[in-house]
Amino acid sequence: MAKLVECIPNFSEGQRPEVIQQILAVIEGVEGVKLLDHSSDQSHNRSVVTFVGEPQAVKTAAFLAAEKAKALINMEEHQGEHPRMGATDVIPFVPIAGVTMEECVELARELGREIGEKLQIPVYLYEAAATRPERKSLPNVRKGEFEGMKESIHLPERQPDFGPARVHPTAGATAVGARPPLIAYNINLSTSDVNIAKAIAKAIRGSSGGYPSIKALGVMLEDRNVAQVTINVCNFREVPLHRVFEAVKTEASRYGVIITGSEIVGLVPMEALLDAAGFYLRLENFQRGQVLETRLSE
Amino acid sequence: MAKLVECIPNFSEGQRPEVIQQILAVIEGVEGVKLLDHSSDQSHNRSVVTFVGEPQAVKTAAFLAAEKAKALINMEEHQGEHPRMGATDVIPFVPIAGVTMEECVELARELGREIGEKLQIPVYLYEAAATRPERKSLPNVRKGEFEGMKESIHLPERQPDFGPARVHPTAGATAVGARPPLIAYNINLSTSDVNIAKAIAKAIRGSSGGYPSIKALGVMLEDRNVAQVTINVCNFREVPLHRVFEAVKTEASRYGVIITGSEIVGLVPMEALLDAAGFYLRLENFQRGQVLETRLSE
Repeated sequence: MAKLVECIPNFSEGQRPEVIQQILAVIEGVEGVKLLDHSSDQSHNRSVVTFVGEPQAVKTAAFLAAEKAKALINMEEHQGEHPRMGATDVIPFVPIAGVTMEECVELARELGREIGEKLQIPVYLYEAAATRPERKSLPNVRKGEFEGMKESIHLPERQPDFGPARVHPTAGATAVGARPPLIAYNINLSTSDVNIAKAIAKAIRGSSGGYPSIKALGVMLEDRNVAQVTINVCNFREVPLHRVFEAVKTEASRYGVIITGSEIVGLVPMEALLDAAGFYLRLENFQRGQVLETRLSE
Repeated sequence: MAKLVECIPNFSEGQRPEVIQQILAVIEGVEGVKLLDHSSDQSHNRSVVTFVGEPQAVKTAAFLAAEKAKALINMEEHQGEHPRMGATDVIPFVPIAGVTMEECVELARELGREIGEKLQIPVYLYEAAATRPERKSLPNVRKGEFEGMKESIHLPERQPDFGPARVHPTAGATAVGARPPLIAYNINLSTSDVNIAKAIAKAIRGSSGGYPSIKALGVMLEDRNVAQVTINVCNFREVPLHRVFEAVKTEASRYGVIITGSEIVGLVPMEALLDAAGFYLRLENFQRGQVLETRLSE
C-alpha cells in the first residue's frame, strides 16, 4: 500500500462559503491529494477540512491552503466562539498507512519552516512535533489567542519555532503538528441513568487516572432515553477499540448494565477495525497485506 | 469505492513456466486489471491465477487468457493428478466490492458466450451461474474429464451452455461461473487430540448436517503438536467468521478445550474482517465508507 498521510487543517472562517470553496479548490488542485470531508460551523466561525495522500503531496496542499487562507481571511475582523490564533489556525498531520509518526513530525517541521519563511507567519510546532514539552498541548500554544499573542509573542517562552516573532497583522499565527488518528467512539448502555455512564467515563479517561489517550464523558441520548459513554480514542495503537469496549463492559457489569451497541462517528482507519477483528478471532500471523483491497494500491 | 471483481482461472499447465508467463502477460496487459497471485503445481500439472479489477476489464483479461491458453496448451498431451477438462479448465468470477452476485453471473454469461463463439470451445456455466441445478457442482460439470467428455458431450444432459457440442480437439471444454469469495480459515485448539478437532469439524460442516457453506476437517499440526480445525468459509455473507469461531468455541468447550488461535490463509475481503469487528464491538449503523482507506479509490 502507498504511503498515506491524513491532514485536517482548521481555518478561521465558517460563514463565507465562497472563501472555503477557494481553499478547497487549491487543495483539490494538487495531484495525488484526495479531499475526504469539510464542515463549517457558523457560531464557531471555523471550518475543518480533511484530506489524504502521499506525504509530499499532502504537505504541498497544506501550504497552498495556508497561503490562500492568508490572502482571504483577516483575523482583525474574525469573531467566533472557538479559540483561535490564525487564519489557518492549526494543521495536524496524521500517519495512516506505511508512514511513521516520525515521518509526520518531519513533515510538520518542513511545512512549518515553509509557512514561516515564505508567508511570514509565526509557526508553533505542537503535539508529537512539539519542541518544548508545554507545546504538546494546543491550548497552551494558543494561549491569549490572536489578540493576546500580539503582546506576548516577544517573550522568550512564546518564541515561534519558525517565522518572525510577531503575529502576522491579518493571518495571525499557525500551529503545525503531528498526532495519531482520532476515533470518535460512542458506547450505549442498557440504562437511562446518566450517572452510570458518567462513572464509567471517569473510570476509563486519562484526566481522572484512566488511559492517558482516552477522553470520555457520560451523556444522555434524550431521544432514545439511553445513557451513553462518548469517547475520543486519541491513540488506537496505544489503547485499541477492543480494550475500550471491554473496559466499559466490565465497569458496566458492576451496575448490572450491559452494552447494547456502539458507534463509530465519522472516519476510522482500517487498521483499527482489523485490530479488533484480530483480537476477538485470536488471529495469528495476520498481515495487513492479506486484505484483498490493500493489494490494489500497491 | 470502485466496482471490484476477482477472477481465479485455473489452467491445465503446471510444468512449463514459459507457458504460464505468457498467460500472465496477457492478463497484466489489460488496463485496470491487477494480478494478485499465481501458483503452479507440478504433480497436478495445473496453475491457479488470481486477479482483480473492474468487471469489464476482468472479463477482457479472462478472455485473452483463455485465448492464449488455447494457443499454448494441448489437452491431448496433458497429464496430471487433478481432474480437468480444458486448457482453461475453470473461470470463476467473485464479487468483492460494489458488485452483486447477479452482476458476476451476467459477466460469466457474457464471457461464456464469447469463449464459445470466438474460440469454438464448449462452455458450461457453473455454481451461481449454472443453468441447471446439477451444474452448480463443478465435479458434475467436469464428469468424465477431457477424454470421457468426447463421448458424452452429444447427450442432451451434457449439452454446453455456449459453443459447439463437441470437445475442442486441443483446448477441451471450459467451466465459467460465479461464486462468493472463499476464505481459508484455520482454528487451533488447546489439545493434541485430533479426534476432538475431527468431532468439531463434523459438527460445523455442511456435509454432515452443519452449515451448508462450510467445509471443515480435523487435522494434526505435527510440528506444533496441536489439533486444528481447518475450514473453508465458502460464503462469509451467509456464515461469517465470527459465527464459525463461536461455533468451534462452543463445541470445544464440551471437551474442556479452548481456542488458542486462528489463522487466515491467503487473501480475505476487507468486509469479512469488518463484519467480525462489527459483531464483537456491537457496532450500530456502521457504513463501509467510514473506513478511511475505502474513500481513496472512489
